Amino acid sequence: MLRIDILSAVPDLLKSPLEHSIIGRARQNNLVHIEIHDLRDYSTDRHKKIDDYQYGGGAGMVLTPQPIFDCIEKLTSERAYDEIIFTAPDGEVFEQKHANELSIKQNLMILCGHYKGVDQRVRDELITREFSIGDYVLSGGELPAMVMADAITRLLPGALGDAESALTDSFQDDLLEAPVYTRPAEFKGLRVPEILRSGDHKKVDQWRFDNALKRTKQRRPDLYKNFKKKN
Amino acid sequence: MLRIDILSAVPDLLKSPLEHSIIGRARQNNLVHIEIHDLRDYSTDRHKKIDDYQYGGGAGMVLTPQPIFDCIEKLTSERAYDEIIFTAPDGEVFEQKHANELSIKQNLMILCGHYKGVDQRVRDELITREFSIGDYVLSGGELPAMVMADAITRLLPGALGDAESALTDSFQDDLLEAPVYTRPAEFKGLRVPEILRSGDHKKVDQWRFDNALKRTKQRRPDLYKNFKKKN
Repeated sequence: MLRIDILSAVPDLLKSPLEHSIIGRARQNNLVHIEIHDLRDYSTDRHKKIDDYQYGGGAGMVLTPQPIFDCIEKLTSERAYDEIIFTAPDGEVFEQKHANELSIKQNLMILCGHYKGVDQRVRDELITREFSIGDYVLSGGELPAMVMADAITRLLPGALGDAESALTDSFQDDLLEAPVYTRPAEFKGLRVPEILRSGDHKKVDQWRFDNALKRTKQRRPDLYKNFKKKN
Repeated sequence: MLRIDILSAVPDLLKSPLEHSIIGRARQNNLVHIEIHDLRDYSTDRHKKIDDYQYGGGAGMVLTPQPIFDCIEKLTSERAYDEIIFTAPDGEVFEQKHANELSIKQNLMILCGHYKGVDQRVRDELITREFSIGDYVLSGGELPAMVMADAITRLLPGALGDAESALTDSFQDDLLEAPVYTRPAEFKGLRVPEILRSGDHKKVDQWRFDNALKRTKQRRPDLYKNFKKKN
């Protein structure tokens, strides 16, 4: 079973997204074990302080090395980790291929970035992989940790209930998905394309492929170029 | 005050990240008003069903148009919305410039994508903007909605407590941030760079700029090229 340890300065924030929907069910069904660690529990400071002003001046607090070193050293003494990941805007840009790759590992650790960051010595000495989930700044690494945990967990066998769906997702083949429709066939005068209701699977498949191609070309010329190169 | 309405099929999932840290404080301080809407409350189906199989066959449930149309029509009858956003892997890639742009709006609506998606008629008729937070697939649009809400909220005046910090973030000038350090000056034999402890602000600024440049060049040649073009 995949194990993910998440280290955070704001562990309460992580609660609800890990208890509901696909991650919640995957945890209940023992497909993934997710453990949250409160960095404050590892602080040797008598006020349980875990951050401090940055050297050189400037706004924003920085996570101090001691609680993080102690927490990571405790965990790595208990089991071997495939990756110790740090979430940071200056990390490698997280993509579907990384979710695929990480979903077949045994033990992952994710240290959530915090506000202005973490002491660089932590990154230099302990972290094996740094990921950014996109080119925007967030107030902490908790949302990115949950995004990665979600992207990874839904790939685990059994998590989606139907193995087919993950394979037809956007990005798995450099193509976005075609439009989807459900009942009613007509709603406020708007009709579902006839071909999808025809029952002709070959035609449906062709329609989906054509529309996936068209949407990708329009919206993401970068992905379209990759697709064309490979096909 | 900025108002963000979030429409979701799994509203419980959104709870904890909106109650803690910077978003939680910004809500308490009336800098932002975030309202969650449960799509099930708008379903006219007697079992409160909000999704159905997709036309043409294939795995994955699709959100039906009726509850979404009714919810959005109710909200838009109450106030004018600047954008009605849909979170989807095939949307425009969300970046810091979009967070900047949306942070000065009055009323935003975010419809969370769900599993296999939403009936295309919703996207065609009601949605004004579609965003993807990155090239990976998630089990729903709730995490993306929270990511966008967080990126936007922290830019609101007063949200960070110190206006300077948001301006020196990664991406605001196409440069990643320089490494940060905090006390102690020596930890397990690892020392903070002397220059940051020198008290010479000019030298500190130069060190930070040089290291930001170096890190950006190494890690994100794409951003570095943009920076060089502008400077």
